[in-house]
Amino acid sequence: MNKIITVGREFGSGGRELGRRLAEELGIEYYDKEIISEIAKNTSLSEKYIRSVVEGKPHSLFPITIGNSFAYNTDYHVRQIQEIFKAQTEIISSLADKSDCVIIGRCADYILRERKPCRLFVYADIDSRIRRCRSRQEGESLTDQELKRRILAIDKDRARYYNDFTGQRWGDKSYYDFCINTTDVVIKEIVPYIAKMF
Amino acid sequence: MNKIITVGREFGSGGRELGRRLAEELGIEYYDKEIISEIAKNTSLSEKYIRSVVEGKPHSLFPITIGNSFAYNTDYHVRQIQEIFKAQTEIISSLADKSDCVIIGRCADYILRERKPCRLFVYADIDSRIRRCRSRQEGESLTDQELKRRILAIDKDRARYYNDFTGQRWGDKSYYDFCINTTDVVIKEIVPYIAKMF
Repeated sequence: MNKIITVGREFGSGGRELGRRLAEELGIEYYDKEIISEIAKNTSLSEKYIRSVVEGKPHSLFPITIGNSFAYNTDYHVRQIQEIFKAQTEIISSLADKSDCVIIGRCADYILRERKPCRLFVYADIDSRIRRCRSRQEGESLTDQELKRRILAIDKDRARYYNDFTGQRWGDKSYYDFCINTTDVVIKEIVPYIAKMF
Repeated sequence: MNKIITVGREFGSGGRELGRRLAEELGIEYYDKEIISEIAKNTSLSEKYIRSVVEGKPHSLFPITIGNSFAYNTDYHVRQIQEIFKAQTEIISSLADKSDCVIIGRCADYILRERKPCRLFVYADIDSRIRRCRSRQEGESLTDQELKRRILAIDKDRARYYNDFTGQRWGDKSYYDFCINTTDVVIKEIVPYIAKMF
């Protein structure tokens, strides 16, 4: 069975970078945003809409209004979400079938649970996450307070999607094999050490 | 500055074994129960009493009754606890001064926080912890349900002592650098990989 590493991460923790560098260091595949494009190819839905669902955006619950029928609208949307879940599950399973890989987010830890992936969760304190966002020119127009609110809102959305889909609790250490604190850590420097565990 | 690894652990998670094997693998010192003996040597208190305080046993709050003075008793006991805290802090700091080492529990992560130790927390699901206790012949006379209650009570005591002493939350991943899930894991097998991180 292929070696699969899944990476859950708090926004601004550097989890995506950690996953990418880990894949490079181990010489294995790395999957992240391309999963959204693959879902779009396999469904009738737009990439933008799929992204808003997969990232747990609350407004994605009611993307359209057809007539005045709330019930119809809800039912229609539930079917769309189910379609996305189904495609997401199939695509992630097929990526895991192909070769050893690192998969970022997208509930891959849960979807692949029977293959016993190594489930990482990456986190950091809020100040460190604000600094990391600033260093990659994210939220440049925001004050620290606004950026903090944005970071926490993104985490809340991620948690909502993950919790609803998996029945587990996003970020709760009992659902992961290793939790890595990246507060005041240079990701590039720690990855070679983490890679040695594999 | 010496390399210090502190290990917090849930009861039955194999955290102590992990710490001991990690120290062996790295060829560095390992400190665990001997810290209690050292505190006893440096105070007027018995090892048994110190252990009950350090392990957060609730009954250790009122170990003796002198006359009927509740206030006096409380005050006397608070001073004993302060004496233990002080000795614990001094002993752990002096061990960290001597050489690289692994220290199990005893709030060493907090006491040594200015030296930036690598703070591990080891945990596992309850069934796995029950199995690990059984495998080392602990709680042989207990049913699984009784053993589970005992494990959770020991954790609760550890958490109480840690939280009171440090103002942090025992087991909350934000206070550790790496959290390691030992559910269904053979400690001996994973330690060489973990050691490679250091």
